[in-house]
Amino acid sequence: MSEQSKIAANPVLAEYVRGNMVENKHRGAFCVVDQNGQVIASAGDVDALIYPRSAIKSLQALALFQSGAVEKFRLNDQDLALSCASHQGEEFHVAGVTEFLTKIGMTAADLECGAHAPFGKAARKALRISGLQPSALHNNCSGKHTGMLAVAKALGVDPKRYIEREHPVQVLVRECVERVLAVPLTPDHCGRDGCSIPTWGAPLNSFAHAFAKLSSGSNALPAIYATAGDRLFKAAASNAELVSGTGGFDTDAMNIFAGDLMLKIGAAGVFCGALRGRNWGFALKCDDGNMEAAHAIVAGLLSAIGGNSDQIETVLKTQTKQVSKNWRGFEVGHMQSAAEIASYF
Amino acid sequence: MSEQSKIAANPVLAEYVRGNMVENKHRGAFCVVDQNGQVIASAGDVDALIYPRSAIKSLQALALFQSGAVEKFRLNDQDLALSCASHQGEEFHVAGVTEFLTKIGMTAADLECGAHAPFGKAARKALRISGLQPSALHNNCSGKHTGMLAVAKALGVDPKRYIEREHPVQVLVRECVERVLAVPLTPDHCGRDGCSIPTWGAPLNSFAHAFAKLSSGSNALPAIYATAGDRLFKAAASNAELVSGTGGFDTDAMNIFAGDLMLKIGAAGVFCGALRGRNWGFALKCDDGNMEAAHAIVAGLLSAIGGNSDQIETVLKTQTKQVSKNWRGFEVGHMQSAAEIASYF
Repeated sequence: MSEQSKIAANPVLAEYVRGNMVENKHRGAFCVVDQNGQVIASAGDVDALIYPRSAIKSLQALALFQSGAVEKFRLNDQDLALSCASHQGEEFHVAGVTEFLTKIGMTAADLECGAHAPFGKAARKALRISGLQPSALHNNCSGKHTGMLAVAKALGVDPKRYIEREHPVQVLVRECVERVLAVPLTPDHCGRDGCSIPTWGAPLNSFAHAFAKLSSGSNALPAIYATAGDRLFKAAASNAELVSGTGGFDTDAMNIFAGDLMLKIGAAGVFCGALRGRNWGFALKCDDGNMEAAHAIVAGLLSAIGGNSDQIETVLKTQTKQVSKNWRGFEVGHMQSAAEIASYF
Repeated sequence: MSEQSKIAANPVLAEYVRGNMVENKHRGAFCVVDQNGQVIASAGDVDALIYPRSAIKSLQALALFQSGAVEKFRLNDQDLALSCASHQGEEFHVAGVTEFLTKIGMTAADLECGAHAPFGKAARKALRISGLQPSALHNNCSGKHTGMLAVAKALGVDPKRYIEREHPVQVLVRECVERVLAVPLTPDHCGRDGCSIPTWGAPLNSFAHAFAKLSSGSNALPAIYATAGDRLFKAAASNAELVSGTGGFDTDAMNIFAGDLMLKIGAAGVFCGALRGRNWGFALKCDDGNMEAAHAIVAGLLSAIGGNSDQIETVLKTQTKQVSKNWRGFEVGHMQSAAEIASYF
């Protein structure tokens, strides 16, 4: 990080208002670029390194194409959408991942993502009532991990410990992401993600540009990546309920943009995505990692970009202003995106 | 808020490190002052208004003295400690609040704080297993609310709707807080707290000074407040398990400082407190409201102030570096207080 970026603070992009005063401020950076890297909008230090976390599952999924797994196992759009998903652990997610595992001749026991209760409220309740324990299938990353097992099989390597940085699967995933980013990923900026695979630090703007290139079939990419990008975009956008789930913002936003938007959340306040009609990619990071703030920021961003219909505005409004209630049910405040977001365009 | 404070950003006081890179940054402000308002240490914009939330329950408890409730009901140190508490809903908290209610001739049905499951993990589990529903007694603010019912009784007013801004109880509470702060509290900066009573915005440094005055028996205060401050400080510090609970940081920190420290957490990243031996008061607010960050900051602050023994350092270390694990149990990162905190002294 430059000396400059250590000193200057990113702008406030979301704030929590209680009563008639701002209680909490959320700073962050975002950028929107076209397939040539031309900046459409930019706020804050977009050269600073961020961990993209789950927001780049679609970049990591390139290894499915590079390894030949897509052809070998005849993966369909549902498999690809689940590979790009942070799902809510609903029945149809679990069923989809189970099918995907069967297709590659593996089982939930091979997943190394760990188990957690479904992120979806209804799914969590249903599982609790059933008396069953959460399994790795319910892990929001189980689709991505199944994809990584498919990569291991296609490479003909032992899948054990495929989550480790040195495993051929992660080496290939890193290579693919590096190639689209056009930025080196080094162990100097690397951590372990919630689902145990490595997450590599890279500049925020390189992620935005990667999404623009990948979703526009940019000729700056090898042909196989352009084809892969096209399939992944379509798979995610047209199976949006697999990518997040019922009532999930990524799902609702992709559906309302009717095939023009790919949107993906990442832990600790990250979003990446692309708008196909304009060949734009975008990335944002909320400095403090707050997820409600990140939702408000991305909704503000999408509103500034594409809020040209009442339907779209209705979906975005649920996030640009998130009302919160206290124990008694009184409305006590709301998270809102900063009005200034539009001014960066 | 001044134009300046809108522009300048507060310093980073805590950060979350994943792997070998800072993933999230938490800015904030704090100040430490003596009973005369002399600044001992200050970081960020300490003139900016904050909502103190639950961090000033001991200031709100002054109404128990002002109204005559302490004498009328012969309130003991346990009652006073519970009035200052954000407790974990453990059995001894519920029993203590029940006794306090009986003493003033009221019941849990009179509490208007709302019900929530105990904040303490073990207490929550025990309640779930018992099959009973959480009640207002388990609400972390039930002690404070019982105190407010006692104020209503002492004032001889109808306690109904004692949570409302215009009710004589809240009018008196506001008056007491205003008097110690020596700053006007206005409806222009007011919101509703999680437990439904008003929370009033005031400058961060005024809260620090209020705690210094109140715990040092400053002669800038009316005699009744000096006496009240002395009793409240002793009640909280010597019944620290009532103020938070088993394993709670406020409790552990007060115990390890052995009577010299009063410490109180407030929602959305606030802490207030006092160090009696030095007649210092302090207040801090994490800009983004993150509670883990606020814990790291206050632990860093206490470490800079009073970390002169191995025992104290051991307690503080649990918060100055909070290790986090992922679904598989791998250590993936940690929240830490910024090393710079000590440099502000």
